[in-house]
Amino acid sequence: MIDLPLLRDCFASSDAKIVMLVVDGLGGAPHPDTGKSELEAAKLPNLNALAQRSALGLTIPVLPGVTPGSGPGHMALFGYDPLKHVIGRGALEAMGVAGVDFQDGDVVARGNFCTVDANGLLVDRRAGRIPSRLSEPLCRELDRIKVDSIDIRVYPVMDYRFVLRMRGDGLSDDLTEMDPQRTGVPLQNVKALSIKAKSAAEACNEFVRQARQLLMDEERANMVILRGFSGMPHMPSMARAYGLNPAAIAAYPMYRGLASILGMTVLPTGATFEDELDTLEARYHEHDFFFIHYKHTDTAGEDGDFDAKMKALEDLDSYLPRLLDLRPDVLLIAGDHSTPSIMANHSWHPVPLLLHSKWTGGERSDGFSERTCARGSLGTIKAIHVMLMAMAHAGKMSRFGA
Amino acid sequence: MIDLPLLRDCFASSDAKIVMLVVDGLGGAPHPDTGKSELEAAKLPNLNALAQRSALGLTIPVLPGVTPGSGPGHMALFGYDPLKHVIGRGALEAMGVAGVDFQDGDVVARGNFCTVDANGLLVDRRAGRIPSRLSEPLCRELDRIKVDSIDIRVYPVMDYRFVLRMRGDGLSDDLTEMDPQRTGVPLQNVKALSIKAKSAAEACNEFVRQARQLLMDEERANMVILRGFSGMPHMPSMARAYGLNPAAIAAYPMYRGLASILGMTVLPTGATFEDELDTLEARYHEHDFFFIHYKHTDTAGEDGDFDAKMKALEDLDSYLPRLLDLRPDVLLIAGDHSTPSIMANHSWHPVPLLLHSKWTGGERSDGFSERTCARGSLGTIKAIHVMLMAMAHAGKMSRFGA
Repeated sequence: MIDLPLLRDCFASSDAKIVMLVVDGLGGAPHPDTGKSELEAAKLPNLNALAQRSALGLTIPVLPGVTPGSGPGHMALFGYDPLKHVIGRGALEAMGVAGVDFQDGDVVARGNFCTVDANGLLVDRRAGRIPSRLSEPLCRELDRIKVDSIDIRVYPVMDYRFVLRMRGDGLSDDLTEMDPQRTGVPLQNVKALSIKAKSAAEACNEFVRQARQLLMDEERANMVILRGFSGMPHMPSMARAYGLNPAAIAAYPMYRGLASILGMTVLPTGATFEDELDTLEARYHEHDFFFIHYKHTDTAGEDGDFDAKMKALEDLDSYLPRLLDLRPDVLLIAGDHSTPSIMANHSWHPVPLLLHSKWTGGERSDGFSERTCARGSLGTIKAIHVMLMAMAHAGKMSRFGA
Repeated sequence: MIDLPLLRDCFASSDAKIVMLVVDGLGGAPHPDTGKSELEAAKLPNLNALAQRSALGLTIPVLPGVTPGSGPGHMALFGYDPLKHVIGRGALEAMGVAGVDFQDGDVVARGNFCTVDANGLLVDRRAGRIPSRLSEPLCRELDRIKVDSIDIRVYPVMDYRFVLRMRGDGLSDDLTEMDPQRTGVPLQNVKALSIKAKSAAEACNEFVRQARQLLMDEERANMVILRGFSGMPHMPSMARAYGLNPAAIAAYPMYRGLASILGMTVLPTGATFEDELDTLEARYHEHDFFFIHYKHTDTAGEDGDFDAKMKALEDLDSYLPRLLDLRPDVLLIAGDHSTPSIMANHSWHPVPLLLHSKWTGGERSDGFSERTCARGSLGTIKAIHVMLMAMAHAGKMSRFGA
């Protein structure tokens, strides 16, 4: 685990390969009508068969009762205590978007196009989710804005989202957000939370003023919202901590950004899980640890669509043979957090965990679900300990103490 | 949780109501003749039906194997790590007794009347458990004792118990106790454990000397024992930590004292659980968190009376509909510790926990007992995390991190 220097000497490099499949929002909860969760209701022949010869458990991402965002949820799975290592959302986004020039001393923010009415009251926080082909030219416009003594760049992300980057002397990310989190009210000015953040706050507000002028005549994207201000995070390297050569395969920018901050090699890949699998197969010989990300479970759960989440799990199940064909020494199927469809949101529920290695053949675990995992031999563990289990099963950890 | 400032921003006030029923000494252990615990042997139609639509788990009050007193057991349930937050037993008692004038700088102690023989050897540590009508006049006598430069007051508690309060310059609670914990030996003098406690130790010993003179001719209560010395504890406010407006309903002084120290509003109530329920119903609109205490399970367990503990659980079960009729958004049934009748004492056994909310309808848990709770979806968690679960199920916690 990242913060335990005493364990560093136990980690030993080897050729053994670990594949960690992170199924976003994996955990669910029983539907009140059937008493079955998404995992229990879905048809998962491959996952259930794999569970038979794997070890199961549950992970607690942060603490019991605490609902994690995707950032803390992933950090924990890689062994970083999310209560100690905090990464700003802006930095996550900036690190994940190709071509963003983000350096130490810079401050970045997540930007949204939004819609305001004639009185400046917020009408749509996402500008009708305008597509990239409409937002990219607008980002190029915003990128031309000049603010005194601070260099500002605007990079498109996807649809209505962009990254804003500020560069200059003495910037600080100690700033309030503009997003009022509801419509019908004005956007908030950016305020400095400490004296050292004064120049950054002024630059943001001046940028927003000019952006409003430029966008005035747009039908939907007629204003911007800035939030998630953050400087460059400094995290211990996962590669160094575990003696691994880790790679990340993720279609979504945020997960690529996070992997990059943790010192993983981020492999270029396409937009689908199939693309990610292609990348994994193509680059499998180059690394000894792979983080590969599956997104659709979370999206369906957040939409409150029980059937869609079942379907996302069934789709994933159909891809499982491709993962198994690589014969990784350790295959982990984990989740960054639960996203029960009945809640249409992330939740605090412990997350199912499956670990397959040559040491798990006799477990006879009974299918893969929240309930079977609660009875599994791995127990209910902190997510920050998952990497230790992976390293152990991969034979990459020697005895602690004589 | 009290000690995690990073989580503070996640707590959000709302109208949702949380009721935490603390069943003192809730957990039991199987009777060797039947293999059934008190919870398994008792007829609990309401509790078992509620369990079906609730989430179950076990709580560990302090650490595995550690048997907590009532103080630490309760502290943990409210989110205070009992290994970090220690409240002296004297302070607990003093805070719980109406009319005790206890201020910062004072030192208080729990006092017992006891019986000694002509040689001063201890015969009965509780003076035959003399009733309040006999002890109260004696307390008034003791209250008249004058000790040089230190103001001493004596307040009756119940039966053979009283509170002693010292006020003066430079007092310290760094004192040894008088109680030898067995009979046939002399009482111990109070000794200062540090130089700053010297004046308090001298005052105590002088008080005891005078008390012995005054009580000399009493048949049973012919001497006093002082123990549990403590100054005013300073604890973070539970109200502030969670953004709650918490209230406590407890017939027993100690639990009222504890609630008061943690910043709960202590509601006046009567001597029975029925009185407590009346209070809960009458004041239900005024608070968003209620701690309500049920004592008889612990008393029966401590008496080693298996049948009486079953009966106490069955009595509690009969009151459950009144709690459910209030339709709290979250109902917790928890225990501060286990008190297995077969041990006639508090124990280290993990304590059953039931949590009912609108999110637990699909759980189909199979009755309420130590064994069903061990298989429950909440898992075996630290008691200090129970409040996080309660806040989460009440919708009073937002996501941690983006």
